[in-house]
Amino acid sequence: MLYQPHLLKNFRFEKSDLPSDEKKQLISQLSERLGKLQLQVQKDKLPVLVLVEGWGTAGKGSRIASMIRSLDPRFFEVISVSSPSAEELAKPFLYRHMKNIPESGKFIFLDSGWMDESIRAMQSGELSEEEYAHRLEDIRIFERQLCDNGYLLVKLFLHISKKEQDKRINDLLSHADTRWRISEHDLQQNRQYEQNINDFDEYLQATHLPYAPWQVIDSSHRKQSDIDCLTALCSCIEAALEQKQAGVPLGAQENSAQKSFPLIKMPLLDEVALNQEMSRKEYKKQLKFYQKKLRKLHNQIYRWKIPVILAYEGWDAAGKGGNIKRITSALDPRGYKVIPVAAPKPYELARHYLWRFWQNLPKRGHIVIFDRTWYGRVMVERLEGFCTESDWKRAYTEMNEFEQQLTDWGAIVLKFWIQIDKDTQLKRFEERQNTPEKQWKITDEDWRNREKWDEYEQAVNEMLQKTSTSYAPWHIIESNCKYYARIKALRILTETLENAIDQAQSRK
Amino acid sequence: MLYQPHLLKNFRFEKSDLPSDEKKQLISQLSERLGKLQLQVQKDKLPVLVLVEGWGTAGKGSRIASMIRSLDPRFFEVISVSSPSAEELAKPFLYRHMKNIPESGKFIFLDSGWMDESIRAMQSGELSEEEYAHRLEDIRIFERQLCDNGYLLVKLFLHISKKEQDKRINDLLSHADTRWRISEHDLQQNRQYEQNINDFDEYLQATHLPYAPWQVIDSSHRKQSDIDCLTALCSCIEAALEQKQAGVPLGAQENSAQKSFPLIKMPLLDEVALNQEMSRKEYKKQLKFYQKKLRKLHNQIYRWKIPVILAYEGWDAAGKGGNIKRITSALDPRGYKVIPVAAPKPYELARHYLWRFWQNLPKRGHIVIFDRTWYGRVMVERLEGFCTESDWKRAYTEMNEFEQQLTDWGAIVLKFWIQIDKDTQLKRFEERQNTPEKQWKITDEDWRNREKWDEYEQAVNEMLQKTSTSYAPWHIIESNCKYYARIKALRILTETLENAIDQAQSRK
Repeated sequence: MLYQPHLLKNFRFEKSDLPSDEKKQLISQLSERLGKLQLQVQKDKLPVLVLVEGWGTAGKGSRIASMIRSLDPRFFEVISVSSPSAEELAKPFLYRHMKNIPESGKFIFLDSGWMDESIRAMQSGELSEEEYAHRLEDIRIFERQLCDNGYLLVKLFLHISKKEQDKRINDLLSHADTRWRISEHDLQQNRQYEQNINDFDEYLQATHLPYAPWQVIDSSHRKQSDIDCLTALCSCIEAALEQKQAGVPLGAQENSAQKSFPLIKMPLLDEVALNQEMSRKEYKKQLKFYQKKLRKLHNQIYRWKIPVILAYEGWDAAGKGGNIKRITSALDPRGYKVIPVAAPKPYELARHYLWRFWQNLPKRGHIVIFDRTWYGRVMVERLEGFCTESDWKRAYTEMNEFEQQLTDWGAIVLKFWIQIDKDTQLKRFEERQNTPEKQWKITDEDWRNREKWDEYEQAVNEMLQKTSTSYAPWHIIESNCKYYARIKALRILTETLENAIDQAQSRK
Repeated sequence: MLYQPHLLKNFRFEKSDLPSDEKKQLISQLSERLGKLQLQVQKDKLPVLVLVEGWGTAGKGSRIASMIRSLDPRFFEVISVSSPSAEELAKPFLYRHMKNIPESGKFIFLDSGWMDESIRAMQSGELSEEEYAHRLEDIRIFERQLCDNGYLLVKLFLHISKKEQDKRINDLLSHADTRWRISEHDLQQNRQYEQNINDFDEYLQATHLPYAPWQVIDSSHRKQSDIDCLTALCSCIEAALEQKQAGVPLGAQENSAQKSFPLIKMPLLDEVALNQEMSRKEYKKQLKFYQKKLRKLHNQIYRWKIPVILAYEGWDAAGKGGNIKRITSALDPRGYKVIPVAAPKPYELARHYLWRFWQNLPKRGHIVIFDRTWYGRVMVERLEGFCTESDWKRAYTEMNEFEQQLTDWGAIVLKFWIQIDKDTQLKRFEERQNTPEKQWKITDEDWRNREKWDEYEQAVNEMLQKTSTSYAPWHIIESNCKYYARIKALRILTETLENAIDQAQSRK
């Protein structure tokens, strides 16, 4: 049944009086209904994420087994979410959950997920009260972003009484072959059943969202709970397919757009002076100075475990590649990665547009440099019509939220817009065209994009206004003179790292 | 220089008398040469795996930094191979190394890899002498398979003297920001320098293969070792490109084909009787019996941490899907995965053909069921010309080796050929065609394959003769009667699991 405040605490477990045979038949029918729905899910490209949470021994595995019975292995995967690994612990909390979201047209069944993990962390004191409140907010954002981007999120909580849990634990413990199924955590949860009821109720209430509501399943009886899970899943899918076919968005949409962020006022691109110059001699001197500094700072950010994310955007031929190279050549190759961002691969395109960026976040103490970024959403995808108007309009908020999650985690997020004027681009395009070794760097697409310079400029201006936040600011790097641009980027990077390390040291 | 027996022990460290400026210029030239080669590597689709092993503090990171300086981030990745994670430890040794092989046309630089890991395991006693010898053989097979399948494997060992290592360790330890670079393992390696020389010499000699030789780099001096690494890399790439263009295979080819395996004599397909029958009533009874048994065994294989790999092959419409379903419906969904194998995705096609199967191996205690398998190489890929004749002829050995590695690791490997006759296939095709809900299961390709029945039958016969080994046997499942087939598969599976569990218990 749909969640309502304190539902678990006041729950009335009830035995249905349907005869066993009729239950069996009902399960068969529901299973068949789901089997047919999977083809429509596939056809309509609906991604379906089924999150199964609940008490230990409540039967999460058996319920998932019953839901997948009629599904084709090509269309679903079951993921058993265990404690985070060392690698996952070195990434933000949502990293490993974002990793598991389905491709469009497919199902993922999660055997517990971010609810279980977060409540455990709160109960163990690993998260303070304040951090836990923050965590709940992160989860709401995560779930809203999924639904806004067309995901169907079905959230089931399997509920059993203390008495029932006692009995199941004892049964499993009494056989050598099933003893491993009971973990220390299950025992502890059982001992503190009442406290857990309260914690679960609090969590369910805090994350019971209109577009991703919780359904509580009475799991005392096997067949009855199979019926309830299958019914919930089928109804949710049918409703989502109907909404999708009618063009009604699955998520919250308008609400999220009203969120406000601490924005920094940015100039318009045509207000940016581009007459800076730097001589080769001065450049060589400063390059040596800053690269030496950066080399040292790289050791320090590793020592202080600070993750660094550097985002490069800019006009074609603005000099992003060369600029990045001057940074990486001062770095230990084991501590950084450059991620060249091109058009998404089919398996990337079939997921939330931020998915591929989440996959490439640095570990703590490492640097990731994105050569083009998630901002493609509000530039090329917007202008070429690769996403809807509501998609790109919503994206400013989504990207501000994304970067806030990263900086809250402790990351430095630096964004460079590499700026040149139209004449300089033309000169560089022609030079590439006329130099045999450089010809592969220039394509017809570059020329086509150039024709849309004014539209792009307008989109970039809007992006800079709406996404330059105090925690993840944009820096405009004037790059008519590449020497000047490289040194400016190095200077901003080293200054930012120095500040972060100073802060880390003073917190120590 | 190329490795020769006891080279490290008798190594003469020498300082080149080239002036520093000339070295710098030489590095520039080599770097530019490599920059040009990368475009050819990309064009000729050569995958390049650069393995950098050597002493702690020998400068692996700096050498890699110098090799990647002129490479475009789209074409390479640096992977720092650390100790295996818990997930990796639950998979066979080669799993995590296979994971890292490059796509064709790209470079991977590994900062130490299977050499470092294996020597550590031997030194710590985790591998017995016999197991270490076995490990070395596995490594030779791995490297040979890579080269046979068109990989360029460049193996560099960075050598420094004890005195030099002493000095570098002390330097790094003396600064707070670099102290983290020295691990306990580095210190121990330094204390037991002489023992390590012997272990390294032994390893290098055992894995110095004609198609993947070791190059030992004197790493006492920064610039000189940059020159040596760049020279080695450029020469290897040039030689490989030349071989590739001349159509000369990069690997050992003929040698591997002579290997013999403990084969089981298999009947020809047309000798297999297909008149078995089972009534629905008998089927229902036996299904219940075996599924109950299997459910229990699933708990036991988890308890005894036995990995299980089930490979399904068979004619179109032979009933693979339904057969698999009768197995999975007895299993806990958290302990198994079905991998439907279709045509490889672009990122799979760009790698060794076994790569995607390595990626999908079970953890210890889990079951993976492949719906179609690596045997596609000697069936569809052979008959449709998706690989060369030498590719599929070599594949029998490669697959026998692959399965041997899996069973040596402790896995059960069971292979089912689901057999029907041509008339039964026709009947089922027509039924699919005429049943609206089943039409999606039948495609033009199925009909085209049917026309090649005889060619396929010949290929299947050859496959069964050459790859039914005592450790990973084929079982022919007669499937004109699907009931009979399902029960036979369940019976073989449960019997095999029972035997394995008995053995595990008796070893205890």
